[in-house]
Amino acid sequence: MQPSPAVPTAAAVVTLRPVSEAQVTTGFWADRMAANRAAIPLGRERLEAAGNLGNLRIAAGEASGDAQGASFRDSDVYKWLEAVAWDGSQPLADLIGTISAAQRDDGYLNSAIQVRGEEPYTHLWNSHELYCAGHLFQAAVAATRATGDTTLLQVAIKFADHLADTFGPSGRTQLEGHPVIESALVELYRETGNRRYLDLAKYFVDARGHGRATKPGFDPSHYGDPAHYSDRVPVRDADTLEGHAVRAVYFATGATDVAIETNDLELLDAVRRQYDNMRQRKQHVTGAVGSRWDGEAFGDDYELPPDRAYAETCAAIGVLQWAWRLLLATGDSSYADQIELLLYNAILPAVSLEDADYFYVNTLHRRTGARGDVQRAPAYGRRPWFNCACCPANVMRTLASLPAYLATGTADGLQIHQYAGSTLRAGSFAVDVDTDYPWDGRVTATVREAPAGEVELALRIPEWASDATVDDKPVTAGDYARVRRVFQPGDQVVLQLPMPPRLLVSDDRVDSTRGCVAIARGPLVYALEQPDQQPDVVLEDLRLDPTAEITAKRTDLLGGITVLHSADLTLIPYYAWANRGLHPMRVWIPAG
Amino acid sequence: MQPSPAVPTAAAVVTLRPVSEAQVTTGFWADRMAANRAAIPLGRERLEAAGNLGNLRIAAGEASGDAQGASFRDSDVYKWLEAVAWDGSQPLADLIGTISAAQRDDGYLNSAIQVRGEEPYTHLWNSHELYCAGHLFQAAVAATRATGDTTLLQVAIKFADHLADTFGPSGRTQLEGHPVIESALVELYRETGNRRYLDLAKYFVDARGHGRATKPGFDPSHYGDPAHYSDRVPVRDADTLEGHAVRAVYFATGATDVAIETNDLELLDAVRRQYDNMRQRKQHVTGAVGSRWDGEAFGDDYELPPDRAYAETCAAIGVLQWAWRLLLATGDSSYADQIELLLYNAILPAVSLEDADYFYVNTLHRRTGARGDVQRAPAYGRRPWFNCACCPANVMRTLASLPAYLATGTADGLQIHQYAGSTLRAGSFAVDVDTDYPWDGRVTATVREAPAGEVELALRIPEWASDATVDDKPVTAGDYARVRRVFQPGDQVVLQLPMPPRLLVSDDRVDSTRGCVAIARGPLVYALEQPDQQPDVVLEDLRLDPTAEITAKRTDLLGGITVLHSADLTLIPYYAWANRGLHPMRVWIPAG
Repeated sequence: MQPSPAVPTAAAVVTLRPVSEAQVTTGFWADRMAANRAAIPLGRERLEAAGNLGNLRIAAGEASGDAQGASFRDSDVYKWLEAVAWDGSQPLADLIGTISAAQRDDGYLNSAIQVRGEEPYTHLWNSHELYCAGHLFQAAVAATRATGDTTLLQVAIKFADHLADTFGPSGRTQLEGHPVIESALVELYRETGNRRYLDLAKYFVDARGHGRATKPGFDPSHYGDPAHYSDRVPVRDADTLEGHAVRAVYFATGATDVAIETNDLELLDAVRRQYDNMRQRKQHVTGAVGSRWDGEAFGDDYELPPDRAYAETCAAIGVLQWAWRLLLATGDSSYADQIELLLYNAILPAVSLEDADYFYVNTLHRRTGARGDVQRAPAYGRRPWFNCACCPANVMRTLASLPAYLATGTADGLQIHQYAGSTLRAGSFAVDVDTDYPWDGRVTATVREAPAGEVELALRIPEWASDATVDDKPVTAGDYARVRRVFQPGDQVVLQLPMPPRLLVSDDRVDSTRGCVAIARGPLVYALEQPDQQPDVVLEDLRLDPTAEITAKRTDLLGGITVLHSADLTLIPYYAWANRGLHPMRVWIPAG
Repeated sequence: MQPSPAVPTAAAVVTLRPVSEAQVTTGFWADRMAANRAAIPLGRERLEAAGNLGNLRIAAGEASGDAQGASFRDSDVYKWLEAVAWDGSQPLADLIGTISAAQRDDGYLNSAIQVRGEEPYTHLWNSHELYCAGHLFQAAVAATRATGDTTLLQVAIKFADHLADTFGPSGRTQLEGHPVIESALVELYRETGNRRYLDLAKYFVDARGHGRATKPGFDPSHYGDPAHYSDRVPVRDADTLEGHAVRAVYFATGATDVAIETNDLELLDAVRRQYDNMRQRKQHVTGAVGSRWDGEAFGDDYELPPDRAYAETCAAIGVLQWAWRLLLATGDSSYADQIELLLYNAILPAVSLEDADYFYVNTLHRRTGARGDVQRAPAYGRRPWFNCACCPANVMRTLASLPAYLATGTADGLQIHQYAGSTLRAGSFAVDVDTDYPWDGRVTATVREAPAGEVELALRIPEWASDATVDDKPVTAGDYARVRRVFQPGDQVVLQLPMPPRLLVSDDRVDSTRGCVAIARGPLVYALEQPDQQPDVVLEDLRLDPTAEITAKRTDLLGGITVLHSADLTLIPYYAWANRGLHPMRVWIPAG
C-alpha cells in the first residue's frame, strides 16, 4: 500500500480508494518536492531554535528549564515528524524516544502543560491539548504506514486510550477548542482497528455545536463566540462553515471521516452541503478560505477582499484534506478540481521557491506602499518560522505526502486526479505518467502492467478544460474521461488539455472584485507583480482590457514559468510572487 | 466665555477663536442633544453596573473588593464626567469627591492599578495610565469651564505635577502607549497657565516616534509594532497616520495643540500634511477612519472596505477634535466641512435615536446574513455598553459640547461653521440662527446685538453646496461667504444652500467601491436599508442607475427624516439605520 494519509478501512463506504503505489518522478512537482525535502532539515533547526524540541526534552527529563511558548507547540513537532515520515528522508528515532519519554504514565502528553505543572483539560477552549494529540496521532499513523515503525504509534495509542477514558458521553463535558482530534482518531482507528477511537471521534463530532467547546462564562472576544470553535450549530444542522477557518475545515474533515467509516449518509450530506456553500460564497479564486484577520475567520457570505484576505495556509491545507475525503466518498471530479486549485494556488504560494520561507497569511493583493504590522503580515514577505508556527510544517507534511493525492483505485480501474510525472499502481494495473504539466496540457499515460481482463483508466478532465481530448477524441470537462478496455504493457493513452489563458470573474455580490478579472491558464491563477510591468506605473492604476489577446510564453524566469502578456501587462503564476523581493502584486485586475 | 474644549491661550497663534456664547436652541441638533441629555443618567447606571465607579470607590477606601476590568476603566468615568460638565445636567460633587479620595498623596491616580497593588508606569504600552490621566484632565478642565468648580482641577493639577516630575527629558524613558495626554496637558496649561504642562506635552509629542512607546522586547502581535502606538516615525517626519486609529488621531490632535500654543509652524505643517493624506487615502465617505479590525488600525492607502470598515466611533471623534484645532489654526473652511461630515455621518450614526445604544464599530455595509462574533460587532446592533466602553461616553461628551463647534469669533467678526437653530455671540456681536438644516438649506441669521462699527458675518459654504446664495447673491462653495458691514439688531442675512441629491464616487484605487455610487443630500450621506425596499429583494443584488432622477421627500419616518427615491430604491440617512431592528444596509451601491 502507498503510505498515505486518509486510508479508509475495508468497511468504509467509499467510491474510490487510495492507490497501492504512487511516486512523483519528474517535472514540476518533483522539483517542488525536492525543495520540500531540502526544507525538512531546516524545519528541525527552527523547531530547535524556537524551543519546541526543548519543551519535549524538559518534559522527558532530558533537559531542565521553563517551557517556551503556548501549549500548542508540540503540534509543530508532530506535523514536522509527519512530514519526515511521508518524505522518508530523516531518521526519527531520537525524537520519538524523547516524545515517548515525555509521555506521562497515564498516557497524557503535552510538554508545556506538564512542565508548567498545570492541570490537564482545564482550559480546553484554548489549550490545544487534543489538537496536539491529534497531530501526534497523525504523525504516528504516518510513521507506521511509511516506515513500519510503531514506536510512535504506541505513544499515540496510550494517549488515545487516556482520551477515551476521559472524554465521551459520561466523561468531561468540556470539549477541545481546536478540532483535528476527530480526523486523527479515525485515522488511528484505521491503523489499529480499535473501534473505541472511531466511537470517540463520532462522539466529538456530534457533541459539538452546543457551546461545550466554547470558553465558559462571558467573554467579549472570539473566545466567547461558539462559532469561533465551530460550536454554535451541530454539524448535521449547519449550512455553512463559520468562525475560525482552520478549526472549521479540520472539523469538517473529521466529520467526513466519521461519515465514511460509519456509513452515515446524513452526516455526509451535511458536510457536502457546507462544502457547496463554502465553494460558492466563501472561497477566494485561489481556493484560499478564511477572509478575516480578526478571529482568523470565515467572513459573511461574499466577503472576499483580496488585499485583506487572511487566507491562512493551514486553512487551505484543511480544505485539501477535506476535499480528498469527499473525493474518496463520492468519486466526484469537482473535489479533485478543488485539490488541483489548492495545490497550485493556495498551498504552493505559501512557500518560497528557494530557502524554505513561508506565508502564514496569503494576500491576493499587496498594495503599493503596503506596511507590515504583525509578524504574520504578508507585507513582510515569507518567513522561516513564526511565533505561532502552524503553517510551515503543515506545508512540509502536505508536499511530502503529495503522491497520495495523485490517483485512486477501484476494483477494476485506476483514476488519475492530478497530473504529474509519476508512476502509479492500483492492484495489478500500473501506469507511468509523463507530462510537462502545469505548463503544457499534454499528458501521456503508458501502461507498465495490466491485468488480463478489461480495466478502466479514468482521467480527470478539469472543469476549466474546454476542448480536451483523449486519444484525439473529445471528452467532457468537469468529469472523468474513462478508457475501458484490455490494456497491454506499453499501451499509451494521450490526454490533451488545451490551456488558452482565460478570464475569471467573481460573483457580483463580492464588492472588491466586481468589475475585475483574474487570469488563469490551465490550473494556475496568475497575478500582476510590479517588476514585470512598465517602469514607474502604480500597480493599482493598471487596467486589463478583457477583449485584448493574452499570449503565453515559456521563460527561464522563476524556475521556468510560463508568463502571460496582455497588451502592456505581464502576468506570472500567483504561486511565484514575492520571490524577487517585495513588490506590489495583485490577482484581481480592474477591467477596462 | 462659552464653556468649550480647546480654548487656545491669548498667546496661541490661531486664526479663529471660540465664541463667547453658543447655544443650540431648536431643530435637529436640539433634539439630538436632548436625547443625549436623557442618556447621561443612563451612563452613570452603566458605569455603576460595569464596576468602573466601584473601582474608584475601592481605591478611595469607600468600599472593598477586587478591581473590575482593565486599567483603562477610569477613563470611561472621566469622559462621562466631561459630558456631565458640558451638559450641566447632573450634580458632580459626590463622584469628584470619590476621585479626589482615590488619588494617592503623590498625585498618582489609577484605581485598578492601585487596588491591585501594581507598580505604576511599568507596562505603559498597555496600561493606559497617562491615557486615563488625560481624560481626567479634560474632565477637570470641562468642569472648571462649565461650572467654575475647581475641585477636580486640583486633582488634575496634582496628577499633572506628578507626571511632570516623573516624565520628561531626564525622566522615565518609556512613553504611554495610548495618546491623549498630549492634548489634555495643553488644555490644563490653558486653564492653569502652568507652562510645565505645555512643556511636558511638547516633550511627549517630540519624544514619540523612536520606539519608546512600544512594548519593549519581541512581540509578534501589534504590541510589538511601533506604528500601533504612532511610535514608528517622529511626528515631524511622518507623512501619514498609521497603526491604531484612535491613538493616531488623538496624538495628531495633541501635536496640533502644541503647535498652536508654541507657534511651531513646522509641526503644524507636518500634521496638516498627515491630515491631507488621511483625507485622500484613508477616510471613508462618511468621514470614518480606521479600516482594520485587526489592530483597530488605519489600513494601507485606499484600503477602505465598506463591509469590514472598523470605523471606530472614538476615531471619528478624534478626527473631529483634530479638525477643530486645524480650523482654529488656519481658518480653512475645509476643516469645518470635515466636522460637518463627521457629526452627521460618523458620530451621530453611532448612537441610536432612542434608548441610548451605541455602535463601537460603524460598518458601511451590513451584509445579508451578517453574523455577529465579538461583542462590538455591528451585526449585533447598537449596545448600551461594552466591556471596553470607550465609545459611549465619548459620544456623550461630544454631543454635550456640540455648541462649541458651531461658530468662532475674530476681533471684528463671527464665523458660523455649523448650521443649527442656535444663538451665537462673539464679543458684542450676537446672532440668532434659524434653520431646518439638515433637511432644508435655508439658514436665517438675525442680528440680536451688533457693535457700532463694521463687522463681518462669515457663513461657511460647504464644498458640496453648488449654487448657494447669501441674500440671493451667488457665493462660492468651499469657502466662507463674508458679509461685512454695519449691522443693526434685527438685520437678517439669509443663506440658501440648495440640496439636490448628489452622487458620490470613490477614488478608483479603492477596490470595494469602484463602480459604485453613494448618495448624499446636503450634509447627509444616505444608505439603503432593507425595510424600505421592495419585498424579497436581496440588498446585494440592487443596483442604482446613476442617470435616474433622485427625488427627496420629507416624512414622519425615524423622527422626521427626508427620504430619497431613485427608481425602486429608497434611501434613508445613514445615521438613522439600525433603528428599526437589524436589517441589511449599504452606503455604497453598485451602479448599473
